[in-house]
Amino acid sequence: MGRAERCDSSLQDCPVRGPIAMEGATSMKSPRFAIVGAGNGGQSFAAHLSLLGFSVSLWDVEKEKVEALQRTGRIAASGSVQGEAKIDLITGDICEASRGADVIMVVIPTVYHRSTATAMAPALTDGQVIVLNPGATGGALEVRNTLREAGVRASVVVAETDTLLYACRSPRAGEVIVYGVKDHLDVAALPAAEGSKVAALLNVAFPQFKALPSVLFTSLNNANAMVHPAPTLLNAGRIECKAPFEYYSEGVTPSIARVVEKLDEERLAIGRALGVEVSSIHHFYRMSYGVDGANLYEQIQKVRAYEGIKGPTNLNTRYLFEDIPTGLVPLSCLGNAVDVNTPTMDAVVELGSSLLGRDFSAEGRTLDRLGLAGMSPEEIRRALIA
Amino acid sequence: MGRAERCDSSLQDCPVRGPIAMEGATSMKSPRFAIVGAGNGGQSFAAHLSLLGFSVSLWDVEKEKVEALQRTGRIAASGSVQGEAKIDLITGDICEASRGADVIMVVIPTVYHRSTATAMAPALTDGQVIVLNPGATGGALEVRNTLREAGVRASVVVAETDTLLYACRSPRAGEVIVYGVKDHLDVAALPAAEGSKVAALLNVAFPQFKALPSVLFTSLNNANAMVHPAPTLLNAGRIECKAPFEYYSEGVTPSIARVVEKLDEERLAIGRALGVEVSSIHHFYRMSYGVDGANLYEQIQKVRAYEGIKGPTNLNTRYLFEDIPTGLVPLSCLGNAVDVNTPTMDAVVELGSSLLGRDFSAEGRTLDRLGLAGMSPEEIRRALIA
Repeated sequence: MGRAERCDSSLQDCPVRGPIAMEGATSMKSPRFAIVGAGNGGQSFAAHLSLLGFSVSLWDVEKEKVEALQRTGRIAASGSVQGEAKIDLITGDICEASRGADVIMVVIPTVYHRSTATAMAPALTDGQVIVLNPGATGGALEVRNTLREAGVRASVVVAETDTLLYACRSPRAGEVIVYGVKDHLDVAALPAAEGSKVAALLNVAFPQFKALPSVLFTSLNNANAMVHPAPTLLNAGRIECKAPFEYYSEGVTPSIARVVEKLDEERLAIGRALGVEVSSIHHFYRMSYGVDGANLYEQIQKVRAYEGIKGPTNLNTRYLFEDIPTGLVPLSCLGNAVDVNTPTMDAVVELGSSLLGRDFSAEGRTLDRLGLAGMSPEEIRRALIA
Repeated sequence: MGRAERCDSSLQDCPVRGPIAMEGATSMKSPRFAIVGAGNGGQSFAAHLSLLGFSVSLWDVEKEKVEALQRTGRIAASGSVQGEAKIDLITGDICEASRGADVIMVVIPTVYHRSTATAMAPALTDGQVIVLNPGATGGALEVRNTLREAGVRASVVVAETDTLLYACRSPRAGEVIVYGVKDHLDVAALPAAEGSKVAALLNVAFPQFKALPSVLFTSLNNANAMVHPAPTLLNAGRIECKAPFEYYSEGVTPSIARVVEKLDEERLAIGRALGVEVSSIHHFYRMSYGVDGANLYEQIQKVRAYEGIKGPTNLNTRYLFEDIPTGLVPLSCLGNAVDVNTPTMDAVVELGSSLLGRDFSAEGRTLDRLGLAGMSPEEIRRALIA
């Protein structure tokens, strides 16, 4: 399975702010950044940080991409971030990239968090901060648990955001177009008390990061898990026979929007059982896109930013193979642990698995993967807040 | 919800035989038929039986249709069955239609079996035979249980077929076009030992009916439950936004065919657990349509009879609201009773319910509705064979 190259701008392009004024190099005390993943988001972070004057190392799993980037050692950014950015270190060795970094920004499909954490484990040292951009549901938990399993003794903070800072696209290695930079995004950490320090550290470069009290918030605020897998599944026929359609305006029909609303009710119920007031998908659309309506269908029909976003042309899409195992699966597992039924989520996981010939319930972020197996609801709450 | 008027010719039009020679009136000893339901199939049965010389009464739930039929008292048949058939009694009173009939042919959407059985209960007398054309999964069980609940003391045999005798269409009340008459179809009865007698009785008019040893066979041979709900669900988007597509050649894509194969594996496992060797969907396509292939997708692509069959233009389709509650729901409930997991069936039931805002698990043919609640696998086997 190849890594998809296109940013999901659908949920990440609004609200944005205009071009950012470039500052001069900051003092030697400024944090050193490692960027893990040289896709759209990773190259945007690398270019942006370099242009802001920070020390940046950049890693990618694809040998060809690393070599292409090494050829010039630079990334040309255009759009909301502009300039020719020199990258201090470009490498295919994740330990080399991570060593000595104060902040390790992980910007890869969430399904690779686990294997990537295992790969960087030997290089980690006390005081480093890993930030998953974004974590989807249970990203920080999975990475923390993976590092423990890998025998990491260093005191490392693992944080996750609820979305990506940029709406961006990299047409080729060494070039990024940044369509927009978000006004704000949320970050939370494990241990939870470190959230404010992580935000403060990131704020040296990016004022947009705001700390939330626990990863419960960032992990439950997974809008992609609501609007991607179910509509993709319920449009599987036209996707597989390559009949083009507008993903939101034609793909999320009134009945399909109701299915999404049922998924969302299950998500909110999980939040309540864990003592967290999670925002509904309706609230998300009101706040992020300024659209209102009698129901989700009406709201989505009004989102201007969705115009022109086509449905996937292949069932092997991140809308399924990413948003099911790192979205619906951990949500369903959390629900199960706190006695909240999630029949709609479970049905989407089951049929998505069946469609792709996978077993997402086993492959995905189970409680075991999150390090929460066998815990009572109260123990889970404490594990997330601790 | 209106009753769909179109025969599902997709599974019922092959193999067929040519026009049937009309015989003269048979002796007074010949069975009297009541036809319950004046849709496509019901009018075809009524016309055919009348033309064969049998006494026929015809009932329908729709007042306007009954009045239209009463105006001439006749049905004009064309195609494989030809002639102007005089119907002895056309009535909107189901008890009047049923009273004195030797055979009550029920030819209505299977979701109305229960309410219709309740309505005819007061008129039933010893020795009558009710035949559900077809029964889908659990039709005879549901009707027998409904009659018991209605306090029927008369000794009535309840039988079910696995399909409809005709491929037919009624463009308007009093007119039927019979595209084909099947060479053979299966019938089984409750009590099981009565199956041969039922077949013999029907054979007086129709040599095509063959007795099977128990309703387990007819009820588990539900191809519609395999090929209708899941592909409809997985094409929900294009159906609801009215993007036309060929139901089989474009709607049953390779991945969707794999989902159908998973449903079928669950169905076969239920059969094995109940001690019955059920034919696979692959076998069904080989036998009914003479098509073979490496998998179901390849087989379906070769079915000539499917050419031109369009997908539903509305989610309120019998492919969902009939084949889920009288197909997948009783199959899943039987599976549950005999410890066979049916995750794919359950997922389709759940998402189908969610899409239509229904609760098919509660509305459908549960074990309670089938009169099998609380029984052990062995007791269920005996209840079906007894």
